[in-house]
Amino acid sequence: MDSFLNIINHHQMMNQELLDMAKLVTKKVLAVPQKDRGKQVAMGADGTPTSYIDKVAEDAILEFMDQKNIQANLLSEEAGFIDRGFDQVLVIDPVDGTYNAVRGIPFFSISIARGRKTLADIEEGIVLNMVSGDVYHAEKGKGAFLNEQPIHTREPENGMVLMAYMGSSASPRTYELAQKFRRVRALGAASLDLCAVAAGAADAYYMEHLDSEQGLRIMDIAAGVLILREAGGESYTPKGKILDMPLSLELRKNIMAVNSDKVLEMMK
Amino acid sequence: MDSFLNIINHHQMMNQELLDMAKLVTKKVLAVPQKDRGKQVAMGADGTPTSYIDKVAEDAILEFMDQKNIQANLLSEEAGFIDRGFDQVLVIDPVDGTYNAVRGIPFFSISIARGRKTLADIEEGIVLNMVSGDVYHAEKGKGAFLNEQPIHTREPENGMVLMAYMGSSASPRTYELAQKFRRVRALGAASLDLCAVAAGAADAYYMEHLDSEQGLRIMDIAAGVLILREAGGESYTPKGKILDMPLSLELRKNIMAVNSDKVLEMMK
Repeated sequence: MDSFLNIINHHQMMNQELLDMAKLVTKKVLAVPQKDRGKQVAMGADGTPTSYIDKVAEDAILEFMDQKNIQANLLSEEAGFIDRGFDQVLVIDPVDGTYNAVRGIPFFSISIARGRKTLADIEEGIVLNMVSGDVYHAEKGKGAFLNEQPIHTREPENGMVLMAYMGSSASPRTYELAQKFRRVRALGAASLDLCAVAAGAADAYYMEHLDSEQGLRIMDIAAGVLILREAGGESYTPKGKILDMPLSLELRKNIMAVNSDKVLEMMK
Repeated sequence: MDSFLNIINHHQMMNQELLDMAKLVTKKVLAVPQKDRGKQVAMGADGTPTSYIDKVAEDAILEFMDQKNIQANLLSEEAGFIDRGFDQVLVIDPVDGTYNAVRGIPFFSISIARGRKTLADIEEGIVLNMVSGDVYHAEKGKGAFLNEQPIHTREPENGMVLMAYMGSSASPRTYELAQKFRRVRALGAASLDLCAVAAGAADAYYMEHLDSEQGLRIMDIAAGVLILREAGGESYTPKGKILDMPLSLELRKNIMAVNSDKVLEMMK
């Protein structure tokens, strides 16, 4: 019984610690003046340049994990995989929407997921919108929440809304789909796009890169996909297969996330 | 000399009053729970249904103008034109991005412009992002500001960004243009799209409706167009003619706003 209570306590503490971490990172990121945010400071483990705010955010995460003795390994955009000797892995995008943050488009987040091997076994996810302060959270089997209020995907109705990845690297199908939806939003932060579908702000999210080697990384979507699933939606590949991927830095995937089978059929 | 000082004082006071009004309206709008924001309460003077937050916002504006004895007429989305017996007109979109506000997509603003007859003679503009709190402001001939810091359009460089109006009612050309830009953002609030170009967050904004009777109204763009012009950019029709329109509720226009002649040429 004692050990059961310990597990429960640990679990509850873990929640609060992940939220504390998200808030600490947000504070550090917002403290960087916009003109300094985009300075290139290194090359990340994922092969893309590291902006100054990415480094500020990741340094804060590493320090927090050490200080609080967080019982998990880390998989993160810049640092890559850090084996700290545990079974659990925190899959973190320290700043999702770096470009927005650098340019002053007020839409960027931190995304934190707790899992083990694959997207399918993610147990907990937090996405914190650094501009609005909104906190999306889900634990597997326990539902999804926005600022501690339960959220659910909406029933598709007239005037459907698509969140989409757009621009010169988006696939032609992206543009075909965009013309089927009454409204389209392209906000530039995958974790928040997924949470928008989860919270009933949109009916679908579509991200398909022209280059099949490109796409989203597990860090971008691990928390958002769980939050969406717990809110009643589902994430697929563009071909309509339920999305899964290993917790690995290398792989990139395209995604079609929906609130319902009805919207899935419409998008196929 | 006294009357000259009075004019100056009045002018400065006017600035502060418009900002106070924008902040008051923001406070009232944010106090409405999201579930109540979209309730349809009436039909607006522009022929579209009035959401509850539009009414809350406009009521606050009317009350403020009376209480502070603001020396201007009003042109607003729901109330239409209210002749209060002055030469100047405040052209106001009480909530730009109503759909976003109702759905929980965190981009909506209040847009206030002070003018007389046409878009070309707008003298002052304020756009307040109700989520981030950012305040964009310009006075004709005096430059543009974001949170009291001067802003300028950016030089187009690699990786250009388009803010666009997308979805089933956007013109085919919108989608052709979107594929020419490295990044596309669709935020769903025209005043903030224009301010994004003004502040160097994006290179262009394109809004072209399939239906030539549809498009943006003067309330949506009056402040943003002045802010963009004062920041070094320009607004055109999709055919490349410099945009002007009377301060009237009826007319709707499509818009192509750019940071530079170089981007204008690329979009033509």
